[in-house]
Amino acid sequence: MNDPAKPAPVTLNAREMANLLPDERLRSQFLFILEVEALKQVLRRTPLLDGSRRENDAEHSWQLALMAMVLAEHADEAVDLPRVLKMLLIHDIVEIDAGDTFIYDAAALTDQEAREKIAADRIFGLLPADQAEELRALWDEFEARETAEARFARAIDRLQPLLHNFFTGGGTWHTPGVTSVDVTARKSPIGASSASLWEAAQAIIAEGVARGYLKPGE
Amino acid sequence: MNDPAKPAPVTLNAREMANLLPDERLRSQFLFILEVEALKQVLRRTPLLDGSRRENDAEHSWQLALMAMVLAEHADEAVDLPRVLKMLLIHDIVEIDAGDTFIYDAAALTDQEAREKIAADRIFGLLPADQAEELRALWDEFEARETAEARFARAIDRLQPLLHNFFTGGGTWHTPGVTSVDVTARKSPIGASSASLWEAAQAIIAEGVARGYLKPGE
Repeated sequence: MNDPAKPAPVTLNAREMANLLPDERLRSQFLFILEVEALKQVLRRTPLLDGSRRENDAEHSWQLALMAMVLAEHADEAVDLPRVLKMLLIHDIVEIDAGDTFIYDAAALTDQEAREKIAADRIFGLLPADQAEELRALWDEFEARETAEARFARAIDRLQPLLHNFFTGGGTWHTPGVTSVDVTARKSPIGASSASLWEAAQAIIAEGVARGYLKPGE
Repeated sequence: MNDPAKPAPVTLNAREMANLLPDERLRSQFLFILEVEALKQVLRRTPLLDGSRRENDAEHSWQLALMAMVLAEHADEAVDLPRVLKMLLIHDIVEIDAGDTFIYDAAALTDQEAREKIAADRIFGLLPADQAEELRALWDEFEARETAEARFARAIDRLQPLLHNFFTGGGTWHTPGVTSVDVTARKSPIGASSASLWEAAQAIIAEGVARGYLKPGE
């Protein structure tokens, strides 16, 4: 017998779900919500600020949305903050299927786009059609980086690990072969959205080199 | 010597921070962002859906914001979704200082409000004054439950653990002394915002009793 106090996943078949939640639209919404909860299990390379463990995509997404709320005034082009928030809340959901692709792993980056598009089809497709379309469009917009909102969301997504790497003495900057030239190149999307955040990012990279957290590039 | 590959917290004193980030406003914003990252360390009682561990406040906040995006149409009074999202992103930040108060712990609930207000003063107070005021007002609004947005945010905050308890075979419902009567009472804020979500919640509670995940009340 299972210990009732020990949590264990309960799976309902389609008929049981339909009995429990007869409204098809609400049921689709709940199935999507239950499915994407798995984002809490997708680990990123970035360490928590106390260095105790790696962060997961769900808590990362929360942090980015909060950062966007606080830092929106630094976007060079005015942004529609609600749109940025929605984008950041869903931007990593594809990683439930496609996994987190490490930014300094060139091989994995080559088929990242294809893997993530298949994931987006499946996961957003769990929602009622109108909502699937809306969230997919937000994700496509984030990926395309053609709007001020997408560029700002991307800038925040690049700024956060920079802060974490610096404030944990290097973090993923210690990846063999990585230098300040690579980091500056990877972080340049910050500059595409915000001059003031890019200035701060460059100061942090320089201080990281000065403190020996990051190898200088040539 | 420390292993450079092992992340460890780096603390800058006030002068070092001022040298790194000379702009006072941006520096305050970064200090707030770095401080609230600790929300990833505040554990809640609710298990993940796979039962592997308890969730933390940061990933919980992400999940609630995403749920609000998907379920907003179920609010009986139309809600300003961006306001709901912002509220949910900051609603648990006070728990960095005050801790998570277990909903079935009557003793801890008595001084929860006082502890959380002190935490809100300190944590939101890290921000530039205008932003401190804006986020504090959002948190006060969430706590007061007097607006449609605050009631909907609260409803989502009550619905999420209900789903997790059911889909892990009971979760915190197995707390000694807790019955379906207690759960229904604790979950009633769902009904204060949404008739359709409350109907679903009641069906889930009833099915939880039928399956033996939750003791029936009298």
